[in-house]
Amino acid sequence: MPRLSEYLLPTEKQPPADAEALSHVLMVRAGLIRQMGAGMWSWLPAGWRTHQRAVAIIREEMDAIGGQEMLMPVLQPAEPWRKTGRLDIEELFKLHDRKGSELVLAMTHEEAVTFHVAQLVRSYRDLPLILYHFQVKERDEPRPRAGVLRTREFIMKDSYTFDRDQAGLEERYELHVGAYDRIMQRTGLRFYRVESDVGMMGGLGAHEYMAPCPAGEDEIALAPGYAANLEVALRSPEVSKVGDGYELRGEPLSVQPAIEVGNIFMLGTRYSEPLGASYLDETGQERPVWMGSYGIGPARIVAAAVEQFADERGISWPKALAPFDVHLVAVGSAGTPERDAAERLYEILNASELEVLYDDRDAGPGEKFADAELLGCPLRLTVGRRSLESGAAEVQVRRGLKDIEGLPLDAEPGTLQRLMDELWRSVP
Amino acid sequence: MPRLSEYLLPTEKQPPADAEALSHVLMVRAGLIRQMGAGMWSWLPAGWRTHQRAVAIIREEMDAIGGQEMLMPVLQPAEPWRKTGRLDIEELFKLHDRKGSELVLAMTHEEAVTFHVAQLVRSYRDLPLILYHFQVKERDEPRPRAGVLRTREFIMKDSYTFDRDQAGLEERYELHVGAYDRIMQRTGLRFYRVESDVGMMGGLGAHEYMAPCPAGEDEIALAPGYAANLEVALRSPEVSKVGDGYELRGEPLSVQPAIEVGNIFMLGTRYSEPLGASYLDETGQERPVWMGSYGIGPARIVAAAVEQFADERGISWPKALAPFDVHLVAVGSAGTPERDAAERLYEILNASELEVLYDDRDAGPGEKFADAELLGCPLRLTVGRRSLESGAAEVQVRRGLKDIEGLPLDAEPGTLQRLMDELWRSVP
Repeated sequence: MPRLSEYLLPTEKQPPADAEALSHVLMVRAGLIRQMGAGMWSWLPAGWRTHQRAVAIIREEMDAIGGQEMLMPVLQPAEPWRKTGRLDIEELFKLHDRKGSELVLAMTHEEAVTFHVAQLVRSYRDLPLILYHFQVKERDEPRPRAGVLRTREFIMKDSYTFDRDQAGLEERYELHVGAYDRIMQRTGLRFYRVESDVGMMGGLGAHEYMAPCPAGEDEIALAPGYAANLEVALRSPEVSKVGDGYELRGEPLSVQPAIEVGNIFMLGTRYSEPLGASYLDETGQERPVWMGSYGIGPARIVAAAVEQFADERGISWPKALAPFDVHLVAVGSAGTPERDAAERLYEILNASELEVLYDDRDAGPGEKFADAELLGCPLRLTVGRRSLESGAAEVQVRRGLKDIEGLPLDAEPGTLQRLMDELWRSVP
Repeated sequence: MPRLSEYLLPTEKQPPADAEALSHVLMVRAGLIRQMGAGMWSWLPAGWRTHQRAVAIIREEMDAIGGQEMLMPVLQPAEPWRKTGRLDIEELFKLHDRKGSELVLAMTHEEAVTFHVAQLVRSYRDLPLILYHFQVKERDEPRPRAGVLRTREFIMKDSYTFDRDQAGLEERYELHVGAYDRIMQRTGLRFYRVESDVGMMGGLGAHEYMAPCPAGEDEIALAPGYAANLEVALRSPEVSKVGDGYELRGEPLSVQPAIEVGNIFMLGTRYSEPLGASYLDETGQERPVWMGSYGIGPARIVAAAVEQFADERGISWPKALAPFDVHLVAVGSAGTPERDAAERLYEILNASELEVLYDDRDAGPGEKFADAELLGCPLRLTVGRRSLESGAAEVQVRRGLKDIEGLPLDAEPGTLQRLMDELWRSVP
């Protein structure tokens, strides 16, 4: 686990000039991301750790419902996109290779996966299938904004399901509802699953996973026991406009901005028909494959977590997404007894299951504490002269900046690890 | 671990029409990869597992030398490429966004990483740094060929080092030599580290990691205690041409085709100067950062392993790269005692550390054995009527198709897992 003196964590006191969204400001200030151009972002090491923690949770839940991970290319021939009618989408990047062939940069992978399934699936025995990948998406976004919330390139987990009929699709869809609910619960985000507008994707049903926060570009309508995309709610006969607001069956509806972190669609045969993905049923008759498509954005999950839990000092990560579990701050310069005690604690924690960032820099305590509060790891340990006097490292929970009982510095490594483990489990 | 009846492993008896390279033929036939267009490939689930095993080995060794993982975008502004003079490279894909801005698809990430380092590194205290990522690369390859060996899109691990001076660069370079040597050793590939042509990258030194095999596009010159890129060897005054071949100090040189799986370069200030990546030294003087760049291709590692160890029946994976450790074949249809015994063994192996693919399909033993030999997992277990009679599952080592002592079917789960573990460790 890294020593901060050797780690690329370029924190900033000032927000970036053009930043409005809180997650944009804090992720740049905390040294998690940097921009290379409009809507083109790099994830710096600590930021990438948070992204990959979201990825790991998504992967586990996809595998648990029988998802098979694969990888499809970003650069693709234009032909399948012509067949599905999506070649004209304005956000689709198109280019030509040196021989003049028309290529596209995929914004989602319905065309690619259906192209393969059309070749690989022959019989009802080959179905159902759940295929997924984590892959870069490119979109010629007219107005990239809000840090990693709306970009021209981002990683998405997209999965695709293939079934014999609508009943099978509904089953695969329900599996995804379960998986997505668990993913969202595990990340620690506040979220709503809402019915969404099926719009141009076809009419079989769709849901969005919405994380309420001020930077959200979507709006959700909420009442006790009710949550919907605002657009969908306004089409309901049970919703009415009353003065400044809305009512659902006489009860006031609260409207909140939210980030769409995931969406799931029943596609039906929208892609399988133009791309020829069919199978032979038990009677030997050829039938189109029934498909669903399911996206979730690890970057948006991370940014939503920043938005939902930050305070005036900085980020306050949910445990599941933090770049490190523990931020260990050494107060006192190299060669002092307090630094030796911090080094010992670092070595002991390094041998435990917990992930530790160790601030061993030659810097003052004010700077170190400010950086720790900005980065927002769930637990901060401090070892300084005061710790030597009291015999314990100070422990602070980031959420609420609450000081809790210290960690005895003289304890045996095994005891310390056990105490830390208990501490960790006690953090909400 | 998957049941083959539910797993997307589309094996083929016939080779793809246009395939010359053995790895191309076998990876398609074994259901590991499929083509979407010229030089644009998808990794199917079993293939993706082999790719990700290579990735995991590379990541561990990069982390072990202090590498910090991050992610930089594929889609980039053209401006940094103009500054380094690389915008005119023919293989570079260029495109325009909807506002007419010029963009490129990165083929490597020197420009991106140096762009960031120019902003983030200020003082000698910020150096050295080793930054790396696994990211998609795009190249407008004139002649994509040989399956995943030469493609237009592929994943590369590229790392970049940043130092105060040449001595620091040499130290970071040596760390990479160590890491790459260990990566190659761990994959199980036969390989040579050879001096390479520094060419247009600048004159400070470079090496290539070469895996000898017939499909290789490069050539290496070998003699006892000597290995070099053929082009480099031919420039040596100690190498002479003799009749049909070459000699090194009078000893014959053997020339072999090889796949370049990795390369490492001392760049010096080739990128830091045009992109303004400098730092203030101890005396407050501004100096350019010294850089190195280090690439390795997981897809080429996988394909080289296929090339080097295949036999007439199919692939024979090194243990470190196999999609599954064990291929368990159930002979006999559902409901028979032999199938019940296979199911029991599957459940027990599933609870162990080993990764198991279970062939539970309704298919004949001939088809199942042929698929197992084609896919090439290191160990094959077979449970059929014969196993019930002998009381043991048959065990075959894929490398050499060697039958070894069977696995007692009646043993307790713990005993079976211990026996399997011993078996696994005995496989070379």
